Amino acid sequence: MTQPVADPGRAALSATARTRHQRLREQGRTDRADLLAVLRAGFIAHLGVVVDGTPMVIPTSYGYDEDTLYLHGSVASRSLATRPADAAGPADAAGPAGAALACVTITLVDGLVLARSVFEHAVNYRSAMIYGTPRLVTDPAEKLHGLHLLSEHLAPGQWDYARQPSRKELAATSLLSLPLDEASVKVRTGPPDDADSPDAALGLWAGELPLTSTWGQPVPDPELPAGTAVPPHLTARAGTRAFEAGR
Amino acid sequence: MTQPVADPGRAALSATARTRHQRLREQGRTDRADLLAVLRAGFIAHLGVVVDGTPMVIPTSYGYDEDTLYLHGSVASRSLATRPADAAGPADAAGPAGAALACVTITLVDGLVLARSVFEHAVNYRSAMIYGTPRLVTDPAEKLHGLHLLSEHLAPGQWDYARQPSRKELAATSLLSLPLDEASVKVRTGPPDDADSPDAALGLWAGELPLTSTWGQPVPDPELPAGTAVPPHLTARAGTRAFEAGR
Repeated sequence: MTQPVADPGRAALSATARTRHQRLREQGRTDRADLLAVLRAGFIAHLGVVVDGTPMVIPTSYGYDEDTLYLHGSVASRSLATRPADAAGPADAAGPAGAALACVTITLVDGLVLARSVFEHAVNYRSAMIYGTPRLVTDPAEKLHGLHLLSEHLAPGQWDYARQPSRKELAATSLLSLPLDEASVKVRTGPPDDADSPDAALGLWAGELPLTSTWGQPVPDPELPAGTAVPPHLTARAGTRAFEAGR
Repeated sequence: MTQPVADPGRAALSATARTRHQRLREQGRTDRADLLAVLRAGFIAHLGVVVDGTPMVIPTSYGYDEDTLYLHGSVASRSLATRPADAAGPADAAGPAGAALACVTITLVDGLVLARSVFEHAVNYRSAMIYGTPRLVTDPAEKLHGLHLLSEHLAPGQWDYARQPSRKELAATSLLSLPLDEASVKVRTGPPDDADSPDAALGLWAGELPLTSTWGQPVPDPELPAGTAVPPHLTARAGTRAFEAGR
């Protein structure tokens, strides 16, 4: 059920106690290609960090390459920024090097699973949980690289169309990087699991209610001068589906 | 910008250091009605807990009433279940009573904000972050109540249509409850913020690319006997929008 990967040598994600799949009804996947497929389909991540002793789950946009996840991280990066780079974190939120661990989860919902019993109801989804120690990106060249990836993943075509970041804007932007080394991917697809249960005799309808997300027509800023043309990359995106599986 | 609330006496959510809004471009909201509006529109939450010292962000379905959030919580509840109810948690992940704090975030994406500069690009969204100490629901009557809320929020009409949980199924289901006392709601709407900046002179198009999610037509389980009728509550949902604002 896993997908082929371009580079089998680095295909497998590291499996640890916290990424081992424990629910059987859903399917755990361990190939890097599966992780990249979820990253490709989504564009909002939920970043979980421990800030001043409190777990925080922060929605944020992201970009990625083969090895690294880049996250906009104003709230989380404030916490990282005020922590000396070599400070030992509290024992229960610390990685091997003493820095604070994070968990980044990306979830795409594909539909509802309507079973014969309430107990067997479920959600069809694709989800990736990535664990690692986030690093505040400070090198201007790396920051530009990460922001380029993030911008083009969120709004493809805009990096070249809009004005690119100035040196000052670059400095004012917080960007986190996280290695794509340790991750868990889970996917649920298909009909409910109770077709061969005694509940099938109830004669009830069962199946899926799909959920699809679609980009609408561009809505101009009311302040825009009349006649300002919508660029082709936005016109082309309107009407297409977001969060689609594929490759 | 806040909505009217039925009971003004309990409308305000408690504001603490961790729920105070720190980003100015987005709008923080503090009324309970705003929190309930986000809960009403979504159906997947990201539950953040600290398990064995590691932050975990777990996607899960939820239900709610005026006071309480109910979450499916197999992973998180294993951690809660193995922790004695009165055990003092680690100091940096502990609430007043020593139990483990959680952060539950619900995020709805409404579209992309396409600005004249890459720096001003943003996402239009609605988001709620709820903090509290989750409790494992063990009382069968409360569990049935919580599961009923969860089921009807996720798949309205199915609780009465499908077979309801048996005593055994109820015992096998993990349900967490979280008080809706401390929360932060943030909303971004509208066009980009750079219409009155020097970038307006660039003559670039700017505005929003809306994202809408729609329930599709019910897909029957392939194992279903031919001619099994789709119940009206599912037929009625097909073609309607998910994650919609408003009551």
